[in-house]
Amino acid sequence: MLKYSDDLDKAFLALADPTRRAIVDRLTRGPASVSDLAAPFAFTLAAIMQHLRVLEQAGLVSSQKQGRVRTCSIEPEALRSVEDWISERRTTWERRLDRLGLLLDGPDPAPSPSPTSPTGERP
Amino acid sequence: MLKYSDDLDKAFLALADPTRRAIVDRLTRGPASVSDLAAPFAFTLAAIMQHLRVLEQAGLVSSQKQGRVRTCSIEPEALRSVEDWISERRTTWERRLDRLGLLLDGPDPAPSPSPTSPTGERP
Repeated sequence: MLKYSDDLDKAFLALADPTRRAIVDRLTRGPASVSDLAAPFAFTLAAIMQHLRVLEQAGLVSSQKQGRVRTCSIEPEALRSVEDWISERRTTWERRLDRLGLLLDGPDPAPSPSPTSPTGERP
Repeated sequence: MLKYSDDLDKAFLALADPTRRAIVDRLTRGPASVSDLAAPFAFTLAAIMQHLRVLEQAGLVSSQKQGRVRTCSIEPEALRSVEDWISERRTTWERRLDRLGLLLDGPDPAPSPSPTSPTGERP
């Protein structure tokens, strides 16, 4: 539990930077070398390496060196943990809103955007 | 765009702390007073107020003072922005995996969830 919380801390923190998000965004489209990752930015390779280190420590990115080229890849599990944490809270919040809506609407709830009533007819 | 990126920075940063995530978690189940939010933690009210300030500045929480009680509520839009950012990257990554899968499977691709070829026939 503590480990999970610590992992989430690191993942959220790593994603709280536009350059690191841009690197993650690029890597979701496929592996890339550090030079390729650095190309869109006016940063030194050392600065990009520093961002990559934060992403690797957060488990969001992995890298492998072959010869002189280090290739980086996305690690989707960490991204999924972050997404899961948020979507679980959104679900809780939406369920609460649904319950409030039912209470306010009483016996005649407003039609929802779900496809259960394609004709829009009401009983 | 810059504003959006800055908002995301703040939201991710605010969520990179277990106490702040616990506060968000609590508020998705309904509004709460600062004292209620502080109750599960061994922190001073001042420390909780500091966390709430970070969450408010990130747009994740709002609060209103009535008399001597400050009541906090979740602001779901900021939470949704964070979730959207991640889910868009996951979708990109999963599409890439699907394409790789099709390439690897060769002439007998696994059925994909897309409705473009319901019969699975190939020309």
